[in-house]
Amino acid sequence: MKFKVHCELEYQVYQPSTFIFNIHALRTATQTVLEEVLEVDPYIRFEEFTSVHSTNRFVRMEVKEPMMFKIAYKAVVDPAYTIIDHDSALAPVPVVQLDGDVIPYLFPSRYCQSDKLQRFAYSKFGKIENAFEQVLTITEWIHKNVEYLSGSTNSQTSAFDTITELAGVCRDFAHLGIALCRALSIPARYFTGYSYKLFPPDFHACFEAYIGGRWIIFDATKLAPLNGLIKIANGRDAADAAVASTFGNVACTSIKVGAETADPEFEPFMYEKSTLKGLSYE
Amino acid sequence: MKFKVHCELEYQVYQPSTFIFNIHALRTATQTVLEEVLEVDPYIRFEEFTSVHSTNRFVRMEVKEPMMFKIAYKAVVDPAYTIIDHDSALAPVPVVQLDGDVIPYLFPSRYCQSDKLQRFAYSKFGKIENAFEQVLTITEWIHKNVEYLSGSTNSQTSAFDTITELAGVCRDFAHLGIALCRALSIPARYFTGYSYKLFPPDFHACFEAYIGGRWIIFDATKLAPLNGLIKIANGRDAADAAVASTFGNVACTSIKVGAETADPEFEPFMYEKSTLKGLSYE
Amino acid sequence: MKFKVHCELEYQVYQPSTFIFNIHALRTATQTVLEEVLEVDPYIRFEEFTSVHSTNRFVRMEVKEPMMFKIAYKAVVDPAYTIIDHDSALAPVPVVQLDGDVIPYLFPSRYCQSDKLQRFAYSKFGKIENAFEQVLTITEWIHKNVEYLSGSTNSQTSAFDTITELAGVCRDFAHLGIALCRALSIPARYFTGYSYKLFPPDFHACFEAYIGGRWIIFDATKLAPLNGLIKIANGRDAADAAVASTFGNVACTSIKVGAETADPEFEPFMYEKSTLKGLSYE
Amino acid sequence: MKFKVHCELEYQVYQPSTFIFNIHALRTATQTVLEEVLEVDPYIRFEEFTSVHSTNRFVRMEVKEPMMFKIAYKAVVDPAYTIIDHDSALAPVPVVQLDGDVIPYLFPSRYCQSDKLQRFAYSKFGKIENAFEQVLTITEWIHKNVEYLSGSTNSQTSAFDTITELAGVCRDFAHLGIALCRALSIPARYFTGYSYKLFPPDFHACFEAYIGGRWIIFDATKLAPLNGLIKIANGRDAADAAVASTFGNVACTSIKVGAETADPEFEPFMYEKSTLKGLSYE
Repeated sequence: MKFKVHCELEYQVYQPSTFIFNIHALRTATQTVLEEVLEVDPYIRFEEFTSVHSTNRFVRMEVKEPMMFKIAYKAVVDPAYTIIDHDSALAPVPVVQLDGDVIPYLFPSRYCQSDKLQRFAYSKFGKIENAFEQVLTITEWIHKNVEYLSGSTNSQTSAFDTITELAGVCRDFAHLGIALCRALSIPARYFTGYSYKLFPPDFHACFEAYIGGRWIIFDATKLAPLNGLIKIANGRDAADAAVASTFGNVACTSIKVGAETADPEFEPFMYEKSTLKGLSYE
Repeated sequence: MKFKVHCELEYQVYQPSTFIFNIHALRTATQTVLEEVLEVDPYIRFEEFTSVHSTNRFVRMEVKEPMMFKIAYKAVVDPAYTIIDHDSALAPVPVVQLDGDVIPYLFPSRYCQSDKLQRFAYSKFGKIENAFEQVLTITEWIHKNVEYLSGSTNSQTSAFDTITELAGVCRDFAHLGIALCRALSIPARYFTGYSYKLFPPDFHACFEAYIGGRWIIFDATKLAPLNGLIKIANGRDAADAAVASTFGNVACTSIKVGAETADPEFEPFMYEKSTLKGLSYE
Repeated sequence: MKFKVHCELEYQVYQPSTFIFNIHALRTATQTVLEEVLEVDPYIRFEEFTSVHSTNRFVRMEVKEPMMFKIAYKAVVDPAYTIIDHDSALAPVPVVQLDGDVIPYLFPSRYCQSDKLQRFAYSKFGKIENAFEQVLTITEWIHKNVEYLSGSTNSQTSAFDTITELAGVCRDFAHLGIALCRALSIPARYFTGYSYKLFPPDFHACFEAYIGGRWIIFDATKLAPLNGLIKIANGRDAADAAVASTFGNVACTSIKVGAETADPEFEPFMYEKSTLKGLSYE
Repeated sequence: MKFKVHCELEYQVYQPSTFIFNIHALRTATQTVLEEVLEVDPYIRFEEFTSVHSTNRFVRMEVKEPMMFKIAYKAVVDPAYTIIDHDSALAPVPVVQLDGDVIPYLFPSRYCQSDKLQRFAYSKFGKIENAFEQVLTITEWIHKNVEYLSGSTNSQTSAFDTITELAGVCRDFAHLGIALCRALSIPARYFTGYSYKLFPPDFHACFEAYIGGRWIIFDATKLAPLNGLIKIANGRDAADAAVASTFGNVACTSIKVGAETADPEFEPFMYEKSTLKGLSYE
């Protein structure tokens, strides 16, 4: 299903600064970028780059003098997903069988201190045998216990805070989900993207857990359908996949984000405890 | 120069468990592994693997029943290094010119919360223009202010703790160095290895900062010569490069580590503030 | 009921140091100290003092040169307690009616960051109307979720750690109980004492919550009967009521503590959810 | 010297709530309240109370229904102070000679984790022999290293954060000063008050250290003259001396604070390193 996605970020630059943006829709075997355009107004030279560490598409630019500028991205993207409903396809993968590329997602990261959550995770979720049900129960627990509250957290808030303070935004919900999965030896990674029917419209963050040999999507906020996500980036946590990293003295003065579909047949898909169907963007 | 390195780890396994070891000397363009042997006693099947995220060499094994075992690694390794002494070769690399593969080492990680140390780093080290001198000053500051004290920290201790508590071991010294570099927009990564003339003998941890387009080695502990290091792994921090990650109920009962050279001409190399010569294992 | 209590602490003093001990049984309207003796061997001059902030009995001594010494306290104490079983007598006291002396126990302290636990406390325990039942549910929750594990924590561990890390000793159990009560606007204070039938024998810590106009005792460890406690001190938390505060370079080399009763009729009293009977040492 | 002080706080109350205010000028042997008036508009019954733990003057009121109200306090106050300039009068008091009432101010509290700052404090300030000079050096260090930045911190920020994050407001400056003093075994307490010539006008917070047998005032912000302070409260830290503690769902919509003197002879007094003169409000 095709989605039109777009964002526009506006910055006030006070001193020469460098920006790294991560707003392009990812190109993967299952996500096709049909059209896209990136505009910077007024024009500033920029370059796209990737890293050996990931397939995320970064844009970098240097702003050499104080000014105001806008960066806008528009694309038509066709992300394919699979619904997986066989029990065996949602089994945990023992650490000994994990692919080497997946193993780094077992370890703690800046905002996901899984090493400090082990007792909590085992006491609360350790007895659930089906891995998909286990992660689903984690997201239900987060959804029920953490209040979605704009402005309640900041860029330094981590899973160790959120698990007790119980308020946050999508980023915090994702970090907590990731940390709890890793504490149970389930690989988990951060996911940022455009999100259809997210209200209020914004960039979205959720997470993927590695179950049955695939990355399955989970969203503890339940703010948007799982089948309306257009992936921008994966990472260990928000440190790897910030929409914008800035080096210098700048202020973001406006953010506009949106996602639409022309397809009248979109049927929102959310998980239900009774059916145990997982959704994977692989 | 050739070094013989060896380690022997002994474990008591109480329940079926999985181990991931990272004790092999790394193979790089400048570090040649001439001979090596890995032994597990009693024999347990193991496999070597790497990850797309790094060149670190991991060994994984599943221990299916309670038992005691030893894993021993021996190798003859020839690590080459370069001494860089031209001022221009030790200049900072602006973010806008950094290679994509290096950029992830700018961001905060589990034990290196560079996002919380920016004011500190800028107020203390921000005015030093030469990047090599800047990082050298950071290591001197750590060396002078942090007491090397075995047992004073644990696996959860991070740079944000150490910068105030001022005690730790090599791992903590490295984490603090990394965090301060990143806070100044200098990429920095964790380095683990065997270390010649380290006393008491143990695995060693220090860090590399990206200066003048190369990774330059730094060691705030000053416990061993910089030219006697045999690299095992790089990573964002200790979460990426643990000597052993264990999944299950196990206890490490003994660790023996060593490094020797047969070469009588080894001349220890340490940094001096007066000369500004950097050492790179690239 | 009369108890014989005793303790003996041994210290190695490396440099001139000052000690403040808080090991005397408290004298209150309901706790009578029938006999007591304090011995320091070898003899060092000491003085007893109290503070306007509390009735705790402190002993202070200066050790002017390196040496080893023992301090031993023995007493026969008769603590009286009341069992309160009327519903009305266990009602919450609205903040507006609290006595001025009780109000400081509403506020956060070093190890009891009640300000960070408000959402948690309200979401989990906020709907219970009976104040005694509320605090009892808190202690049951702690007892069920936190593992009593010697050596798992240190003197810097606080309620904010314990609520997630879920392991600790009596001090940690008490701090978490206090923090959760205060988060619900129930005054709560730290209690240290000798404890009959505590195993292994040691000083004990638990807490009192202010309900129905009295301080009611609670012990989330459930390690000892509630009616076998001999109070040493109250405080906001362990910072106020440390058994020993030392200023200088010293090491505690031995601690022995005990409590016995000659009374054959001692019947251990523990709370039961079904009966809602509170025990107060006032 | 007489000062006119006044404040006006406005609240929106959404649900029945209880307020505890601490805005009255303290009455002490050296601070005389010549006139004062407290008004609540619309009128709500309130009561004044104190606590055995301090001489702070609290006002408590219950607002039984949603409404908006103002509380205004005006007073004419004559605080006397002493300038102490003999070296001997500014000597440290050994712990063994401290008055029992002063000892609680040696211990860590919610926002002043002196237990975690000992190495830092000793390494930086431990060698200064004169106690007054020591605390003055601490305040100079804070003043030089911590940026006064409105909005950079919140009510949960503590000295352990500020010592690394290096930004804050008067409350944070005071907490860090207190924590560093206590880490050096110098009793220190929080001080809130009205402040003449403070700009922008607001309640002020600073701290007192116990030197030479008196409480000497220190203010690391240097935002106002030390001889223009009218004391409202002392406490271990802000947890003890909040201007307003609220229990319920309320929002503070306006704060106005001021202090004036009719005396044309006011000469601002600030410390100078060269003279070592301390100012005490005792």
